[in-house]
Amino acid sequence: MLALRFDNEARVVEIDPPAPGPGEALLAVRRAGICSTDLEIVRGYMGFTGTLGHEVVAEVLEHPDPSWVGRRVAAEINLACRRCERCARGLERHCAQRTVLGILGKDGAFAERLTMPTANLHPIPDGVSDDLAVFVEPLAAAFEILEQVHVEPTDRVAVLGAGKLGTLVAMVLERTGAELTVIGRHARRLEALARRGARTCLADAPVDGPFDVVVEATGSPEGFARARALVRPRGTLVLKSTFFGATSVEMAPLVIDEITLVGSRCGPFAPAIRALDAGRIDPSPLIEETFALRDGVAALARAAERGVGKVLLAPGT
Amino acid sequence: MLALRFDNEARVVEIDPPAPGPGEALLAVRRAGICSTDLEIVRGYMGFTGTLGHEVVAEVLEHPDPSWVGRRVAAEINLACRRCERCARGLERHCAQRTVLGILGKDGAFAERLTMPTANLHPIPDGVSDDLAVFVEPLAAAFEILEQVHVEPTDRVAVLGAGKLGTLVAMVLERTGAELTVIGRHARRLEALARRGARTCLADAPVDGPFDVVVEATGSPEGFARARALVRPRGTLVLKSTFFGATSVEMAPLVIDEITLVGSRCGPFAPAIRALDAGRIDPSPLIEETFALRDGVAALARAAERGVGKVLLAPGT
Repeated sequence: MLALRFDNEARVVEIDPPAPGPGEALLAVRRAGICSTDLEIVRGYMGFTGTLGHEVVAEVLEHPDPSWVGRRVAAEINLACRRCERCARGLERHCAQRTVLGILGKDGAFAERLTMPTANLHPIPDGVSDDLAVFVEPLAAAFEILEQVHVEPTDRVAVLGAGKLGTLVAMVLERTGAELTVIGRHARRLEALARRGARTCLADAPVDGPFDVVVEATGSPEGFARARALVRPRGTLVLKSTFFGATSVEMAPLVIDEITLVGSRCGPFAPAIRALDAGRIDPSPLIEETFALRDGVAALARAAERGVGKVLLAPGT
Repeated sequence: MLALRFDNEARVVEIDPPAPGPGEALLAVRRAGICSTDLEIVRGYMGFTGTLGHEVVAEVLEHPDPSWVGRRVAAEINLACRRCERCARGLERHCAQRTVLGILGKDGAFAERLTMPTANLHPIPDGVSDDLAVFVEPLAAAFEILEQVHVEPTDRVAVLGAGKLGTLVAMVLERTGAELTVIGRHARRLEALARRGARTCLADAPVDGPFDVVVEATGSPEGFARARALVRPRGTLVLKSTFFGATSVEMAPLVIDEITLVGSRCGPFAPAIRALDAGRIDPSPLIEETFALRDGVAALARAAERGVGKVLLAPGT
């Protein structure tokens, strides 16, 4: 099968398809999405080598329960041991023994086939197209913010960064009823969000702050200081980028202003699937271009251009 | 009157007593406590010049309401404008126009007399001695943690730092029913806490972590990295030290482990006074030595020695 793999460089190669282990399903990838994390990995983040990709909608080819065969699924990307204390406490996404699809010790979804533990599979309703279903994973990451932070309808909320993740975060947070401001670098993206009713602001323009909750989703080290400056005393700053190396942080002002910083990563799939199925959130305007898997290297290059939306891979084409 | 003032150096000097403005009381200081923040100010923190000191129990000499005269009071150290939006939201301790007793634009309590807005005064019950009442302010800062973080009785909690503030934090957190471990550098302090039932651990010994909640109260830049290493994924790290300059922080691990950082500063006086009045918390073993105000410079030097507890100043002696 074809797979887009990284080992010092990203290449599309022909490899043997994976064989499902006990309790695992074999999946045929229908669509996979390129995430900023994939681009970071290609720059060396996580030290990962292997098949890239963790945003995926796929069809079940083999499953221990035959009734699953033929169903379309999204796949929870953290493969937990399901035996340790963290797993027992419901912290499977933080299992210390976990592998992570296309990120840590597990070949990813930029391939024709992948294997996944059946416990990680989430059926996709028929009404949700492949192009939408591929957003389940990043949309779940956006919903994670609401798992961690009580955003109140009277809050003033800012999302810093109007890229792929920032836009999904804005779509989720807009539904809380809070007054939402999205701050980004690209007028085109902001215009799309403004049409949905968000206040928008170019990154170098003055902002009518401060905010009760600020989400840092720029994917750049400069984002932290900017986000910090926008949050009110006793407010909450959500860190959504896994970009940074070490950042120099003045701790005393965080203490004096009693700021709460919340690191936020993967989230719950169920609310993301419900929102897509009900049409409450439509990320399709985010799609920039769809590439055949054999053109995966060009797809990565396209996804790395500034201001570009979601680039998809379609293995079957 | 005598006052221990800082202006490039700390000196005890004779100055005119302050005159209360409209709505202010004139207080006679009975006891004042030396805090690590005072020692930081003498090293240049906050750029403060003037009379030091913000932990105080005093007697009311003059008050717009004569029924207050003669009462003993503790004084909330943040002097808010009480007119701005933050004050209207109950965030007086974060008022952008505030002065702070002995820290920011307001002469402090290491003096025979001070003035305070009457709204900042909290009567001290007769059963609470001066030596205990001087702990109201730092004990309130310890209670602030429970205003901000829901510490559950089933949590594993670590306090990093067994100095003056760390010990008060431990005394407050021990009452939650959580399993408490105090990590410090001084065996003498840890023994006192161990006698109260806390698990204790020397800072360079292995610790049986991780913990659900970790409080960083070391007052040193190294404390953050140590505290971070002790907190479990999705756990909470409370920053209680206002010591640091810029600290280099790896942000991605905070995101991956979904850590919540909570900056924590001044707290509510009422629960601190209740706890002292009921004898539920007894910080008196923390008292190291009491100096006359005229010996204030020697008192600061004593307080700056490693492993030393609370040093008090007694202006009337």
